[in-house]
Amino acid sequence: MTVNYDYRRAERLGMPEAILCDGKSCRHLGEILRELGERPDFPVLFTRMTPGQFEQLQDSEGASLDYDELSQTAVLHGNLEPRAGRVAIVTAGTSDLTVASETTRTLEFSGICNTLFADVGVAGLWRLMERVDEIADHDVVIVVAGMDAALASVVAGLVNKCVIGVPTSVGYGVANDGRTALNAMLASCGQGIVVTNIDNGFGAACAAIRILNALALDE
Amino acid sequence: MTVNYDYRRAERLGMPEAILCDGKSCRHLGEILRELGERPDFPVLFTRMTPGQFEQLQDSEGASLDYDELSQTAVLHGNLEPRAGRVAIVTAGTSDLTVASETTRTLEFSGICNTLFADVGVAGLWRLMERVDEIADHDVVIVVAGMDAALASVVAGLVNKCVIGVPTSVGYGVANDGRTALNAMLASCGQGIVVTNIDNGFGAACAAIRILNALALDE
Amino acid sequence: MTVNYDYRRAERLGMPEAILCDGKSCRHLGEILRELGERPDFPVLFTRMTPGQFEQLQDSEGASLDYDELSQTAVLHGNLEPRAGRVAIVTAGTSDLTVASETTRTLEFSGICNTLFADVGVAGLWRLMERVDEIADHDVVIVVAGMDAALASVVAGLVNKCVIGVPTSVGYGVANDGRTALNAMLASCGQGIVVTNIDNGFGAACAAIRILNALALDE
Amino acid sequence: MTVNYDYRRAERLGMPEAILCDGKSCRHLGEILRELGERPDFPVLFTRMTPGQFEQLQDSEGASLDYDELSQTAVLHGNLEPRAGRVAIVTAGTSDLTVASETTRTLEFSGICNTLFADVGVAGLWRLMERVDEIADHDVVIVVAGMDAALASVVAGLVNKCVIGVPTSVGYGVANDGRTALNAMLASCGQGIVVTNIDNGFGAACAAIRILNALALDE
Amino acid sequence: MTVNYDYRRAERLGMPEAILCDGKSCRHLGEILRELGERPDFPVLFTRMTPGQFEQLQDSEGASLDYDELSQTAVLHGNLEPRAGRVAIVTAGTSDLTVASETTRTLEFSGICNTLFADVGVAGLWRLMERVDEIADHDVVIVVAGMDAALASVVAGLVNKCVIGVPTSVGYGVANDGRTALNAMLASCGQGIVVTNIDNGFGAACAAIRILNALALDE
Amino acid sequence: MTVNYDYRRAERLGMPEAILCDGKSCRHLGEILRELGERPDFPVLFTRMTPGQFEQLQDSEGASLDYDELSQTAVLHGNLEPRAGRVAIVTAGTSDLTVASETTRTLEFSGICNTLFADVGVAGLWRLMERVDEIADHDVVIVVAGMDAALASVVAGLVNKCVIGVPTSVGYGVANDGRTALNAMLASCGQGIVVTNIDNGFGAACAAIRILNALALDE
Amino acid sequence: MTVNYDYRRAERLGMPEAILCDGKSCRHLGEILRELGERPDFPVLFTRMTPGQFEQLQDSEGASLDYDELSQTAVLHGNLEPRAGRVAIVTAGTSDLTVASETTRTLEFSGICNTLFADVGVAGLWRLMERVDEIADHDVVIVVAGMDAALASVVAGLVNKCVIGVPTSVGYGVANDGRTALNAMLASCGQGIVVTNIDNGFGAACAAIRILNALALDE
Amino acid sequence: MTVNYDYRRAERLGMPEAILCDGKSCRHLGEILRELGERPDFPVLFTRMTPGQFEQLQDSEGASLDYDELSQTAVLHGNLEPRAGRVAIVTAGTSDLTVASETTRTLEFSGICNTLFADVGVAGLWRLMERVDEIADHDVVIVVAGMDAALASVVAGLVNKCVIGVPTSVGYGVANDGRTALNAMLASCGQGIVVTNIDNGFGAACAAIRILNALALDE
Repeated sequence: MTVNYDYRRAERLGMPEAILCDGKSCRHLGEILRELGERPDFPVLFTRMTPGQFEQLQDSEGASLDYDELSQTAVLHGNLEPRAGRVAIVTAGTSDLTVASETTRTLEFSGICNTLFADVGVAGLWRLMERVDEIADHDVVIVVAGMDAALASVVAGLVNKCVIGVPTSVGYGVANDGRTALNAMLASCGQGIVVTNIDNGFGAACAAIRILNALALDE
Repeated sequence: MTVNYDYRRAERLGMPEAILCDGKSCRHLGEILRELGERPDFPVLFTRMTPGQFEQLQDSEGASLDYDELSQTAVLHGNLEPRAGRVAIVTAGTSDLTVASETTRTLEFSGICNTLFADVGVAGLWRLMERVDEIADHDVVIVVAGMDAALASVVAGLVNKCVIGVPTSVGYGVANDGRTALNAMLASCGQGIVVTNIDNGFGAACAAIRILNALALDE
Repeated sequence: MTVNYDYRRAERLGMPEAILCDGKSCRHLGEILRELGERPDFPVLFTRMTPGQFEQLQDSEGASLDYDELSQTAVLHGNLEPRAGRVAIVTAGTSDLTVASETTRTLEFSGICNTLFADVGVAGLWRLMERVDEIADHDVVIVVAGMDAALASVVAGLVNKCVIGVPTSVGYGVANDGRTALNAMLASCGQGIVVTNIDNGFGAACAAIRILNALALDE
Repeated sequence: MTVNYDYRRAERLGMPEAILCDGKSCRHLGEILRELGERPDFPVLFTRMTPGQFEQLQDSEGASLDYDELSQTAVLHGNLEPRAGRVAIVTAGTSDLTVASETTRTLEFSGICNTLFADVGVAGLWRLMERVDEIADHDVVIVVAGMDAALASVVAGLVNKCVIGVPTSVGYGVANDGRTALNAMLASCGQGIVVTNIDNGFGAACAAIRILNALALDE
Repeated sequence: MTVNYDYRRAERLGMPEAILCDGKSCRHLGEILRELGERPDFPVLFTRMTPGQFEQLQDSEGASLDYDELSQTAVLHGNLEPRAGRVAIVTAGTSDLTVASETTRTLEFSGICNTLFADVGVAGLWRLMERVDEIADHDVVIVVAGMDAALASVVAGLVNKCVIGVPTSVGYGVANDGRTALNAMLASCGQGIVVTNIDNGFGAACAAIRILNALALDE
Repeated sequence: MTVNYDYRRAERLGMPEAILCDGKSCRHLGEILRELGERPDFPVLFTRMTPGQFEQLQDSEGASLDYDELSQTAVLHGNLEPRAGRVAIVTAGTSDLTVASETTRTLEFSGICNTLFADVGVAGLWRLMERVDEIADHDVVIVVAGMDAALASVVAGLVNKCVIGVPTSVGYGVANDGRTALNAMLASCGQGIVVTNIDNGFGAACAAIRILNALALDE
Repeated sequence: MTVNYDYRRAERLGMPEAILCDGKSCRHLGEILRELGERPDFPVLFTRMTPGQFEQLQDSEGASLDYDELSQTAVLHGNLEPRAGRVAIVTAGTSDLTVASETTRTLEFSGICNTLFADVGVAGLWRLMERVDEIADHDVVIVVAGMDAALASVVAGLVNKCVIGVPTSVGYGVANDGRTALNAMLASCGQGIVVTNIDNGFGAACAAIRILNALALDE
Repeated sequence: MTVNYDYRRAERLGMPEAILCDGKSCRHLGEILRELGERPDFPVLFTRMTPGQFEQLQDSEGASLDYDELSQTAVLHGNLEPRAGRVAIVTAGTSDLTVASETTRTLEFSGICNTLFADVGVAGLWRLMERVDEIADHDVVIVVAGMDAALASVVAGLVNKCVIGVPTSVGYGVANDGRTALNAMLASCGQGIVVTNIDNGFGAACAAIRILNALALDE
């Protein structure tokens, strides 16, 4: 049950090596931590690590994980070097913060400057309008929204940068665990919105890193 | 194959007797026209009558149908008496006009004053903002929108009247023949939006009439 | 993790400021309660607050929440002023009462007079027929029903007021967590039924308030 | 491409040998007709035969098919012997008549007495109430209805015989080509409703024949 | 929160008054038991009563419920009078027994003779062939099967009585909680199969009762 | 718009180079034919070529395509060398023959001996039982069936060779364009059935070839 | 039926004003052309214009549309100014070229340099490996693929730039009109892939433009 | 509640008698164990036995079950005789190991030699390329993969043996509990891939056994 680590991923793709904890047993995660513990020069991000998993790992392994409960992420061996580029993360409601914080943690781990604009959903449009110029002043804009996800369409009509939509699984009934938000973002009347899987705050950060990789080359 | 007409519907429910032509053969529609032709005091609205159906009926029956191609509706024996109340119809894009015109025709047939606000989708937000006060000055607001249907959420945050969403089947891929618009409206972050079936411009007009029925009582 | 409260919503939309507790942590709700505790002139409705959440908040905050277990709602700082208009709430079975009570609590919070007609499903038609005249004597009729939701269609054929359908997630198998009731209401043969999201008793109350807003203007 | 005919089906199952024409080429149907033409003692029912198919077969084969356009059925070599038992067929709207006529034709072919109650949908409840005693006076009741299919639930609450629901694909949007009617019938609050595939008027007739088979034994 | 009991259902429909416990709180069920406790002449069947619910009710109410754990049913005030007619219940696998036992309990409560043929799925066809003549010798045949539900099609080809399919939610993946079994039964190549909701063993028994109601009349 | 042909596929994978005509314009197919016309040593199979496409290509190109209308396949430059192994193709109904013939044509093109067992569906079980020993005497068994696809489960219980299910899109309503047959095969109670995409007769033949590749090695 | 043109979109968002012809009548498109004909300084892109629409418009309007049949796009009043940045478009099969050409046409209209890498699907992996370095040497990579869309995952593992997946509706059965490709791209094991609606080649180009907008700022 | 064991299955089909524990109560499993305990010559495989079920059975029965936690399988009365043929099992990620180990345990129980190639997903393509020749050197290749399942397509392009895809339910959002992996495998651009139900590692092993049955005959 050994893992094929991708020690050269950061070098090859400019993206962090990350371990998805969801669906892995604590015994398996323990083995991974022991193996990685011997490579202090290899920073790793753990995503979707539940507080329960963290507690068990903390007790039995002694690994110095930097854990954040809201985003359910843990960092091993510190963050990567700071890099150029600025990313805005915009959320529709306070329930979207869990997903948004996965994005911000991944960006911080990757050394990328970012700003969070929370609770600016379109049901109270003035909240967004007050901050739209500030949002537009970033290289990439990530919109985290559930239910009708109308925020993504409105933002895309107001800023000219890449708008990455992250649909969230908040809501009930026809919110359909995020599928309605996903489809609404994909079918948006706003031109050129691109979208990640539901609740994939990590993936949105990786997409932003890919975009900034091109910027870095051009500089 | 006789039809059980509801000659007292207008009286009982305050709503028009309407014949849905979709799925009926021309022979069957012809029989209906002949029967109704003998009751000139009984105004009837035909919905979803294709131009092809109209042409065949016009030729063979000689019934004096007042046909409108955009809305695919026909009126027999004139409109109902004018009634109190004003309804706003707001559309996101020009492709939604077919459905919106079914609403306006049904309201006109029912004697109700209405205003159409076309092509004010949120991708260009200023188009809506210019007219929002005018929209708010109606008793009922019907929002006709497809794809992400974000317009319904934004309008519901700006006006305090009943907002009836009519999802439309425009768009492709995950627009899912209007299901995404429907679900987005139902899961809207805007409080108290109510929704009809996809493309059901007729139903939205009937709902508005039901609302105005209560107003009429209170006056 | 601050919230952008909409202190002027009641004034702007005539609808209550409401906090959806579903998906919020108790820590987050505690912060909200502390903040709102300092604004005794700002009545707030909490929806989908589980008994567990209520107990934790009651212990740690000391806020004087008026909690109702059946509807899972809590009121802070009392109800709004009484307003004109009467709303009927009709339920198909006793399992629909949880959702219906969210509607009645929201209306009471908003100062609106309402009557509950419980367990009048169409499997025993005489139960409905006995009370239909009483139901028809309201400004708005909200039908709360799950499974086949046939009650909405029958009521819409008998009363001439706005019929708002609230599909519920009761039942099993092809009841599909309320999707069958939702679709049956949207595809109803009853003209002009409008519908909310599944189990959205709060939304139905808000829609009724929007309708009564227009009535108030006309009076 | 020969067919394995089930010459003993009537004897074994008491049900007609039937050929589904949908999805078969005219060449294939022609071969079948030629083969069966040589067995005049073997009555056969053809279902879902389009007018186009009938015309081609009529021209090229000379077989004496008794064709009915509304039900899209054809009978070869006459009907079966009359049998005991009476079946009621009840339809919600005139658009359901195509499916209902497939049921009545199959019953007639099978020698079974049946009555059609057309256009008694619940949107105008009095139409059903006038005829419910007459309906209840049959051995089996088949309800053919699309969209919300509320008629099946109401009938099941009023009669004590087997109620077979046949959902139809009429309607648009969330009528979902009959899936909403199907699910509403299956999730009906009426006890003991059983259901066939969408638009399967033939299957409902066969189910009725199976029921009458048991009656015949007991007599 | 009172219930509108249907005290005349047995008389009107020949079917048992039944209380679905699923989705009802123990407090609510307790109230029902207290009310019904005062009508010893009114036999009632409780369905989907979990062992947990039964224990709580047993402790607090002292009502003499006759509880069966496998079928999750309880009987209050004894069974109904014996009636004519015989019903066969056929199951594909041992996992389908929970659902099948809901059918047999309902039939026993209703005074109807029935036989269970367990674990005769088509993966080992000889198991079915050994007993098929015995099965055919009943007035109604109920087939309880999950996953591919192939048993229903095979049985329908071998017996000439009404075959009622009850799809079950056993299995995983594309078994889709019984939807695949449901659709396979509805689309069966076996003529005249009729179907109930997933896991609805109670409904199948009620359908059998409706069929036997017609037999009783004819005798 | 050149195509990257895989001239070494037969050598590398033992499978035919095949061109899917579905979704390609006649102009594009014409270019392909011209290019391949210059490589007479490179046999190619064209699948899903409509009669319309064939006629246009025949007229304009003069390429010597060996076309078969039932299977909608065309062969260019003759069949491959005969190979060891025998494949049985079993169909439930005559409507499945189109798909089954795509399988037999692909096997013939690939030089593999095969036998077709047509119209042996389980609704008349004796048809299958008569031929089951003959079927079992092949190296691979391909079952082509639509609707409930019960045939695959029954065959898998009777033969011990690899059973490849090919669901077909015949039927209507909940047959769901073959999805019900697909799911029923995947959820089959028969152990070890494997399945292809709906209507993918070509893919089933390729899978059989892959299996025979292993046999060839072992011989 | 006037249109609210967004004459300042290019200025505000750096993206082209585009008219979606799908779902618009020729009469409506004619009006649009007449209106725009009077603004020669306003370049416009028409998307999803069928050959039939183009022919009718060409005849009746005399507008000098530059039409391309493969991509179903037309350009009015010439292309925009050349801009910095290079985009790679990679397709899995030749059937994906229609969608890919909508992307390349939109980029050309917008003055952006781009390269097409056609028919490099993973079924023959060497075709992709030969060109992967060349692909990696662009600022943005757009992968156009249908069916399993495996190409997107493989490319994302080999290049470090933003990978925009465009799922296409090619294929049949469970290809589900592109939904399987869409979901596979969204659930890809490749980190940071972002996705557009099915067949939305235009949207992918707009997303690339948004990304290049940020690059332009940084230069 | 007795079970109809298939004591001759191994003889008839060459496949193991297996008991699916999922959905069976411990009491029921206990009865089965007691019955089988008396037939020491009858080896049986238990699948989907949770650790909880194992513990309860171990305590109360004393049966000598050989239990494996990762695969959730238990063997009673030892493995079957060794047989000819070699099977490769290839997994995309470490989360797929649970399913893959059900396959390897079933093969070991059945006496078949097999090799596991773990964590060779296409996001890091070199991991697969290093081992592809080794994989190709088996008679059957089973690919266990979730999410986009791209590994199956890539493997099918590189080896010429039967490729059996086992989709797994790992992942979140549009991974749809394995449905996306299932559909992607079925719609794969790789020719001749065949597929089992989601997470059905046992079924894939049975399919391999069926294939090897043919090999055994030919040897």
